[in-house]
Amino acid sequence: MQRSLSINKKQNNLIALSKKKKLRVAGLMSGTSADGVDVAIIDFGDRLKVLAFDTYPYPESVSRAISKLVNGQEQSAGEICHLNFVIGEVFADAGLRLCKKSGIDINSIDLIGSHGQTIYHNPAGRRFGKKLLRSTLQIGEPAVIAGRTGRMVIADFRPADIAAGGQGAPLVSYADYILFSDKKKNRIIQNIGGIANLTWLKAAGRLEDVIAFDTGPGNMIIDHIACLISNGKSRYDVDGRIAAKGDVNKPLLKKLMQHKFLKRRPPKTTGREEFGAVFSNIIFHNAAQAGMKAEDILATATAFTAESIISAYKRFLPDLPDEVILCGGGARNKTLVRMLRDGIYKSKILTTDDFGINADAKEAISFAILAAQTIRGIPNNVPSATGAKKPVVLGKIVQG
Amino acid sequence: MQRSLSINKKQNNLIALSKKKKLRVAGLMSGTSADGVDVAIIDFGDRLKVLAFDTYPYPESVSRAISKLVNGQEQSAGEICHLNFVIGEVFADAGLRLCKKSGIDINSIDLIGSHGQTIYHNPAGRRFGKKLLRSTLQIGEPAVIAGRTGRMVIADFRPADIAAGGQGAPLVSYADYILFSDKKKNRIIQNIGGIANLTWLKAAGRLEDVIAFDTGPGNMIIDHIACLISNGKSRYDVDGRIAAKGDVNKPLLKKLMQHKFLKRRPPKTTGREEFGAVFSNIIFHNAAQAGMKAEDILATATAFTAESIISAYKRFLPDLPDEVILCGGGARNKTLVRMLRDGIYKSKILTTDDFGINADAKEAISFAILAAQTIRGIPNNVPSATGAKKPVVLGKIVQG
Repeated sequence: MQRSLSINKKQNNLIALSKKKKLRVAGLMSGTSADGVDVAIIDFGDRLKVLAFDTYPYPESVSRAISKLVNGQEQSAGEICHLNFVIGEVFADAGLRLCKKSGIDINSIDLIGSHGQTIYHNPAGRRFGKKLLRSTLQIGEPAVIAGRTGRMVIADFRPADIAAGGQGAPLVSYADYILFSDKKKNRIIQNIGGIANLTWLKAAGRLEDVIAFDTGPGNMIIDHIACLISNGKSRYDVDGRIAAKGDVNKPLLKKLMQHKFLKRRPPKTTGREEFGAVFSNIIFHNAAQAGMKAEDILATATAFTAESIISAYKRFLPDLPDEVILCGGGARNKTLVRMLRDGIYKSKILTTDDFGINADAKEAISFAILAAQTIRGIPNNVPSATGAKKPVVLGKIVQG
Repeated sequence: MQRSLSINKKQNNLIALSKKKKLRVAGLMSGTSADGVDVAIIDFGDRLKVLAFDTYPYPESVSRAISKLVNGQEQSAGEICHLNFVIGEVFADAGLRLCKKSGIDINSIDLIGSHGQTIYHNPAGRRFGKKLLRSTLQIGEPAVIAGRTGRMVIADFRPADIAAGGQGAPLVSYADYILFSDKKKNRIIQNIGGIANLTWLKAAGRLEDVIAFDTGPGNMIIDHIACLISNGKSRYDVDGRIAAKGDVNKPLLKKLMQHKFLKRRPPKTTGREEFGAVFSNIIFHNAAQAGMKAEDILATATAFTAESIISAYKRFLPDLPDEVILCGGGARNKTLVRMLRDGIYKSKILTTDDFGINADAKEAISFAILAAQTIRGIPNNVPSATGAKKPVVLGKIVQG
């Protein structure tokens, strides 16, 4: 006797959630710096409401293990297997802690969207036979998050975009479009993290009109030089105070602006390989050898970030923005913001806070938004931003 | 203006498939031996029909890369990241090739269930703080399979069982229950692969009555000794011919039967760590040194597998089986089957072929069955077999 395969008589949670009009979703995110887990809890309906947000640092042993992998140290499969489950535990803990702290019943959450921890991202690709295969690896086992929280989890959003021919990044542009697009104003969401990236939202534009790409360095060079100047005491130029005291060295700035990346047509992404420690060290030591003062070097590095952002607007966007909405740590660097303002004085400069969105929470919110669309079967990559050949529904659904 | 999050007006494939009464599903599987990809295509309705089956060997470069990882060689994150996408391509190719060969339109397939390639499995667990974390790692990016085939894919079934407190194995017991349980007969599905494992199906039993565990060595020791005897020319004892010529050495058999694993209470799993090359070498060299003939050593190793299976029935099952249904390579070892028959002469010995199920295809079919249940939201682990604390819906759904 063979048992027939019956349809689930009880409520199938996949169906129930995909039809639900109002969803409460938690977003979990850890960036490439691997400091810890950002958690945002959100209500979605006709509008979006952020209920709670916090960041939970990684335990030191976990940071160390991630850092080894990210820095290219070889590890056994057993090590990576274990770390995937460990990070799943840490992500689950972060979600549960925010619920507890904010008095939100974990069972009131319909869905969790988890970005995981990026361990490797290879948009350039590597040969396999005749094919050039791009790849990406995020870990933090979603089945563990589902098991610990008892909630449905959607995770691992990047591979589907890569499989559709994209670079698997940027993914936050989708949420930018949902959160910030306007009927009358051209807007840019300008994130200034280690690397700076933008999302262009045309007034009354469609998803297909979104443009998003990395503009070049964000705080990466500034932070590195601030660290060198302070002999390691400062990890960044607080409020841009040191740069404020210096003068921009025009010839050096002009030379930096020759960097090839700035001329490459979008979609494009960059990283530590191009603007990290090696590049920053060369700038600093050449300038110091030429007799430049420390604050002038930092002012010039800050101007480089500002100018590379402004030049991207002028080169690659169809129009100037009516509003630039800043987020990321760079939004708190007053010298950098002043330089940006000077360069694009016709645009109004705002921050995501002006829209009720904590800038630090934006990425975690983005993955909550992506999860909500995935359970509804709505394609949520932005092909014009990632280079994907078609819209796809991102992520992997774990029912648990 | 914030855009409201609309429900998908078009058909949400998640809903459509989860309600469909008849599903066509492809199952993709590669075992721990990492030889290649088994593909089965199946129609599910009131009954199950196997439409096509074949195995596609891994390209040699892929086998080599897997073998390095499985054997504990350290690799960079970039290497593993790339290999995950490569194996996704290889799995997709295998599915597409079987469709082409058998004249089945890929678009007629509703769903693909993919086991992936096991790279590491740690049911014993490893400490993380105060917790003992079990973990498992299967690779073969499902988003790539979905992208290449255009079909929804469900993959990575083991982690959810582990997150529920189980060992993440055995998973095939669920399909055994669906395929072979009988109203009147107690049945055992006895798989004899490298390791031997059974699924006990009580007459008219419920899923909770299923018992499944590894009984001990399958072909692992036999194959290793056959290889040693032939100086590497034979990879196994074809039809059990060499063992048929030998006599079982009773004292050695008795000693082998003292192995601790055989006494451990189920649920339990074992592997190469206990019955692999190290263990087999010791048996062979000690016996050879003591003057035993090669065929006697092999006969004794074969008897060890048979006896360990029979002793498991007597020790750990509530009743003797009316029928034993053999599958796995060991079912073709005539000497082994004769020894089994002698030990359990009251039971009828059959193979899965007697039920229209190609024994080689059974695992691939199992993952197709698991996928079909997952999309329907039906829990499909077997807690009594894996040790999980509760039923969960296994797998990760990729819509693509």
